[in-house]
Formats: sequence, C-alpha cells, structure tokens
Amino acid sequence: MTENKIPYKIYLTEDEMPRQWYNLRADMVNKPAPLLNPGTLQPMTAAELEGVFCAELVRQELDNDTPFFDIPQEIRDFYKMYRPAPLVRAYCLEEKLQTPAKIYYKFEGNNTSGSHKLNSAIAQAYYAKEQGLKGVTTETGAGQWGTALSMACGYLGLDCKVFMVKCSYEQKPFRREVMRVHGASVTPSPSEETQVGRKILAEFPGTTGSLGCAISEAVEVAVSTPGYRYVLGSVLNQVLLHQSIIGLESKIALDKYGVKPDIIIGCAGGGSNLGGLIAPFMGEKLRGEADYRFIAVEPASCPSFTRGEYRYDFCDTGMVCPLAKMYTLGSSFIPSADHAGGLRFHGMSSILSQLYADGYLEAQAVRQTDVFAAAEEFARVEGILPAPESSHAILAAMNEAKKCKETGEEKTILFGLTGTGYFDLVAYEKFHNGEMTNNIPTDAEIAASLAKLPKVD
Amino acid sequence: MTENKIPYKIYLTEDEMPRQWYNLRADMVNKPAPLLNPGTLQPMTAAELEGVFCAELVRQELDNDTPFFDIPQEIRDFYKMYRPAPLVRAYCLEEKLQTPAKIYYKFEGNNTSGSHKLNSAIAQAYYAKEQGLKGVTTETGAGQWGTALSMACGYLGLDCKVFMVKCSYEQKPFRREVMRVHGASVTPSPSEETQVGRKILAEFPGTTGSLGCAISEAVEVAVSTPGYRYVLGSVLNQVLLHQSIIGLESKIALDKYGVKPDIIIGCAGGGSNLGGLIAPFMGEKLRGEADYRFIAVEPASCPSFTRGEYRYDFCDTGMVCPLAKMYTLGSSFIPSADHAGGLRFHGMSSILSQLYADGYLEAQAVRQTDVFAAAEEFARVEGILPAPESSHAILAAMNEAKKCKETGEEKTILFGLTGTGYFDLVAYEKFHNGEMTNNIPTDAEIAASLAKLPKVD
Repeated sequence: MTENKIPYKIYLTEDEMPRQWYNLRADMVNKPAPLLNPGTLQPMTAAELEGVFCAELVRQELDNDTPFFDIPQEIRDFYKMYRPAPLVRAYCLEEKLQTPAKIYYKFEGNNTSGSHKLNSAIAQAYYAKEQGLKGVTTETGAGQWGTALSMACGYLGLDCKVFMVKCSYEQKPFRREVMRVHGASVTPSPSEETQVGRKILAEFPGTTGSLGCAISEAVEVAVSTPGYRYVLGSVLNQVLLHQSIIGLESKIALDKYGVKPDIIIGCAGGGSNLGGLIAPFMGEKLRGEADYRFIAVEPASCPSFTRGEYRYDFCDTGMVCPLAKMYTLGSSFIPSADHAGGLRFHGMSSILSQLYADGYLEAQAVRQTDVFAAAEEFARVEGILPAPESSHAILAAMNEAKKCKETGEEKTILFGLTGTGYFDLVAYEKFHNGEMTNNIPTDAEIAASLAKLPKVD
Repeated sequence: MTENKIPYKIYLTEDEMPRQWYNLRADMVNKPAPLLNPGTLQPMTAAELEGVFCAELVRQELDNDTPFFDIPQEIRDFYKMYRPAPLVRAYCLEEKLQTPAKIYYKFEGNNTSGSHKLNSAIAQAYYAKEQGLKGVTTETGAGQWGTALSMACGYLGLDCKVFMVKCSYEQKPFRREVMRVHGASVTPSPSEETQVGRKILAEFPGTTGSLGCAISEAVEVAVSTPGYRYVLGSVLNQVLLHQSIIGLESKIALDKYGVKPDIIIGCAGGGSNLGGLIAPFMGEKLRGEADYRFIAVEPASCPSFTRGEYRYDFCDTGMVCPLAKMYTLGSSFIPSADHAGGLRFHGMSSILSQLYADGYLEAQAVRQTDVFAAAEEFARVEGILPAPESSHAILAAMNEAKKCKETGEEKTILFGLTGTGYFDLVAYEKFHNGEMTNNIPTDAEIAASLAKLPKVD
C-alpha cells in the first residue's frame, strides 16, 4: 500500500487554492431555462429578484456567460479557515473491496456545519453584509445548510433566522444547539409564524414538513422584513457557482498527480454538491476537451431525476417563489418521513436538469437501507462517519468499483463525500435496529403531485 | 492577514510524518515511579502485567530508557488515513482577541472518534491482534476513547467491549450508536455484569459512575475472559508514548517555518493529550536544549494537579488495578455529575506527575462555565465546535493571549485542540440555558477521599 506515489490525502497549498469560481453556464450551449415570474410567466428581471436576493447574488444568478467570477479576498480568507478540503485516495476502501479501481473522494466535512454548504453560505452572507443588510432568512432540511449559514452569519455579525423542516428538527435536536452556538434562531417548519406556514398546517395537520414548505416561510419573512433577504443553500445557479470550489480544488489536486477520473459521482438533492464537484470536469466535456461519466445519485424516496418530469415548477410548496424549469416530482411532493436526512427536495438545479436533458449526466436512484449499509462499510475502513446524503454517492462509487472487480478494469472513480453523520445517529440507530424502511413513492403519488403544477411549457 | 508567510494550516507530507514514537522517560532524570502490586507493594513485574495487558505494551510500559520506538508499518498506514493532523495558525482568533500573540493549535478532531484517542487505540489494538488475542475491554468517559477503540478494533477485526461511565452514557446517547457502527458492545458503568460493578452499585445506589469504576469493570472482564486483555486510553506510560505523535508532528510543522513556541498548553484528565503534545518539547527542556512554559489545564471540579496529593493510589475505584504514584484526589473521588464530558479522572499520568513535582510543568484549574464561554467564542471565529475537554486549553490559551494584549508581548502560544464537541450538545444546551453550574469539591470532600488511600510512601 505504501509504495504508491499518490498520498492518502492530497492537500493544496494556499497558493494553489482557486481565486475564482467557475460558472459552468458559460460553456453550456443550451443554457438553463430562466426563472419565471409566476404571475406574468415572463423571465424574472434583476429588479424583481432583488426583492428576495441581494443584488450581487442576483447578478451571479442571471449571468449565463461570464466563465469566471473573482472570489473576494474576505471569502478566500474564510475559506482558508476550513479549506482546502482534502482529496482522499481511498486506499483502505479499495483494499476492502479488492477492486482494481482507484477511488478518490473529496471530503467536505471538516467544518462544524459538517458539509460543503459553508462554501456558499459564506459567499451569500458576505454579499448580504456588503449590501448593508441586517440579516438573512433561510430554510434547512438535514440542518447542514442552516448550520453553515449560522456559522457564516455569526462570523460576519449578521442576523440569521432559520426555518428547519420539522422532521429534521425532531430527528436532529442537537442541530438547533449548534446553530445557537453561532447565534442563529431556529423555527420548526411549517410554523405558525408565517401566513404560508399557517395555511399548510391548516391543510395538512401533522405534516412533517418539506424543504419546499420551509423555503416558502423563509421567503415570506425575508420579503416582509426591512433589511432582510432570503438565501438558499442549493438549486440556484449562484449556489452552484460558489460550490465550483469543490470541483476546482479536486481538479487541481488530481492534475498535480496526473490523474484523470473516468467516473465522477455525487449525491443529488437540489444539486449544489454535484454541480460544484463536476463543474470544471463538465466544462471540459462541454468544450470537447475531455470525456467523463457523471452520475447523480438520488434517494429512491425522492427521485426527481429518475422519475420526475422536466418542466416548470415552483421551488417551494407554498408557491410564492419564482418558477424554475427542472426535473421535478411536483412542488407539493413530500417524501416519506422515514427518509433520513437531506436530499428531500422535490426538484433539481436548472443547470443540472438541462445537462441531464441533454445527455451529459446519468442518474441513479438508490434505496436508503442500501445507503446505510454502504455508509457503515465505508466508516469502518475509512475512519469517517459519513452523512446519509453523502452515503448515496459512496454506495454508487462502491457499486462501480465492484463492477471493476468483475471486469478487471482499473477505472478511476471520484466521488463527493459531502459531509459527516454526527447528527444522523438516530437514523443509524434505526438502521441497526432493523427499523429503517424504503418508502418509495408510487407512480400514482408522483402523478398526483405533478397534476397540481401550472402549465407553462 | 493574507500577507503572512505562515499558512492557516500546516500539513505535513507523508514523508515528513514521524516514523518513531518518542519516549519522554528516556530524558527524565527522575523517572516516573513504578506501578506497584497492591498486594505486595513491590513494583509490578512484566509477568504480572501481562495478565492484564498484552506483552509488547507491557514492554513499552516498563521501558524508561529507550528514547524512540519504531511505529509499525501497519500503524503508520492507519495513521495516514486520518493524519497528519493540521497545525492551525489561529489567525481568526488572534484578530478577534486583538492580541499580538501568535496562536497555534494542533487539531486532532478530524476522525470519527472526534479526538486524539485514536492515536493510541490503533497501537493498542494492533499489538493485541499481533499477539493473537480475540478481543479487548476498556472503559470510556466522554466516549471518545471508546469510539476510538471501536474504530481500531473494527478495522482490525478484534472484538471490543466498552464500559461507559453512566452519566456520559446518558448524556451522550449517540456515542453508543457510533460505537455500534464500528461493531463494539457498550455497557453503562457501574453495571450488574461484574463483581466490582455490583459491589459499587450496592454501596452507592444511583451513582453516575466514574472512570475509575469503569476501569475496574473492564479489567475484571479482561482478566477473567480467555483471549482478552484490557486497554486504557490515558494515564499509562505506553499511552503517552503513542500520543507523542501529536507533539512530534507539531514540532516538525513549527520547525518547517522556524517557529518556536513560548507557551505550550494542554487539557489534562489522565494526561494523554498533554503528555503527547509536550513530549518532544519537554525532551528539549530536560536536555537543556531549549526552554518552554508548559501549562496543564484541568477542571476545577476534578483538580488532580492543583488540589490533589502526590502519592500512590489505585487507578480505579474498585481498587483492583496496580497502584500508581501520581497527583490524585483519591480513587474514590467522583466529580459532580454536572461536570460535562471527560477530564473526570481522579489521578494523573505518573510521567506528568513526576514532571510537575520537579517543577517542569505548571497547572491551572478552570471553571466549566468559563470553559464553555471560551468554547463558543472559539467556535464562532475558528469554525470548529470544540469538545469541552479541549476547551479547557482554549480558555487558558485565550487568557495568555489576553495577557499579551495587556503587555504588548508577541508570545507564541501552542495548544492542543484534542477534539470536537458534536456529541456534547447536551452540555452546550445547558450552558445556553444558564443551567450549567460549577460544582467544585470542598477541601473536606477531597480530604475524605484521600483518607481512604493506602499508606505506601
């Protein structure tokens, strides 16, 4: 094992760290469809979006052409606090699997948010502060995004109000306390604090909530409170832009050792990690400079890519947000409460949706009991307790490595290990006790949810 | 901030990582006092110790002369999985404190055990496996050691039975699940499973347990089960030997940049982290090659160094273990249940005790409410949620940095950030809710505990 030239972990030096984010849209021939105003069905203008998002983020959201955006010095300094994230050569996993495949993962869990979410949280909080805002609102599902935003806001001295999907709030009581450490306020969603929350509670008493619903509440508070804006941890173009740091660092690290991945794998909820990880590699593919297989891995209980439709939908359950064109299960879709952790979003990043529609990206839906089995196997050999979300990618990567064992192919696999599972022990316990199920939606359930959507296309 | 030549984090390359552990005892003029057989009051022989510990570890325990021990290749490979640990320049904390001090910390939390404990766990499990043993038993307080040992045993395929101090078992329910992920069995201590556990339960019904009591139970099971040995996560000479990896890596990293610390600070429970961190620096001091201030930081609720006596005592409550000469509060001392997390041990490493007695080491006792306030301040600027144990060192380092602000001195401070606080959110919640107290033992309580000790000296 030790004769290998490639170390167990590749860390970039500060000088090697990216100074710009990469905007994948610049290299897409078919640009992602624009956000639409749900009233007029016309593309949202910058002026309209600036009621919800701060100005610089609107500029980033709408810019389909500029390939690179400078990362402000203050954000680069913050990145140095917890980055570069290690690119790990999974020697121990390879040995365990007895595979000729070479497995790498980019580990984003070495910060208190326990995930990659901090990469965009600090950017969004920074631009809010630059604009002189007082605070931001947001939603959180598994709690990683809320923690990340709390950290960023606590660091910059911004107020932070988080609506947390109720089932996560209850499954992960300690997440609330971590956010409190960083000075944020946390409300279980749906709540009585907003009009949309009260409406959803009246319609679905006892609901365990959804990301879409929490988004509606956070947006309502942001647009109705002076000095506040809304920030979102995934789905949006701006978020994928910031998360490109994941892929850029990975590519620099691999290039240092002359390694070219054959397959790149990421879990997909709203698409922020996957979009960030694949960005520079997909850019090469779009420009015809290199070829890679890209695999999005989603939960079978919330299978937007593999069982959704590509059409305009609301990003939120309350239907107060702009319409986005994406693979969607319908904005009223709420995955089974038994589904652990994140990746619960009914839709998908418009950028990734367009790439998937154009055949640049594959997708797989996997069952959560298989995901937890892979997570445990990984933890025992790689020394990291993975988040359930990240473990979707682990499972897919292990499956590809096992195929290599059968065929004898020495493929190089790169996957995104988005975060740690320290706050997911309730789910691990359920898994150990044999109480975890795989509540997969029926075709009729998905069709019913899609039937409620507006006809736009 | 960015003009500094020293990066935010210094990582060693694999080639730079230590290949040997350093045995501080080799450079001590006054060697640590030997373990005594409680029956004969004679120094424990290797043969006697080998009933409890595996043979190679006994050899390491008794060797006061060999300065370096080779780290076996298999352990070095395992170390590569989660090491090198970063040496972090705390630029953000320095800026927050507006101090001219330069603060560094060695962060050992980037593995699932959440602490430095894995450094010795893998070594002890490795030697047990080499000896052909079936499994090991141990105790755990805060749960870090138990998790670390579970990880090591899970990796090597050894059976692992953990007795967990009851109050930690209840405060940290998720710890049990992490150990299960790695295949260990976990029993709250005192338990009905052992003679000593039943005796303690009969004498002190409703006790919240102590490390000393859990040690007794684990030792009893080890010596009465064929193919099993006992392993301990702190206090012992062998553990400090393994933990020297912390100090060795730190020193190599600092030497690369020509940095010499003025003050080196570590939290002290049984002494494993502190002893490991200071080892190579203390070696220089003992050899007259350099001078450093060393500060041990202990909880005011369990103040072995600052309020204990230097004398022979049992390492365990059940008085089944050998006698060790150390600063002790008496083996029947049980710190307040309100005291969060680890550092609950009544005694202290014999090595550190001798160094303290000889004036090479200072000690401070700090109150846990101050510790949590420091922890929160640190988390907000450094992006790491620290373990309560580690936060004792944070508080002391911040206090020294504040003194530098007053005097204008540009001192260089190095402290050990032993781990993360993801499993300590119950304690953080108590702190936020103003429910945390500082139950400091009275002189009479300590005197009563010490009065029960055997007269040996």
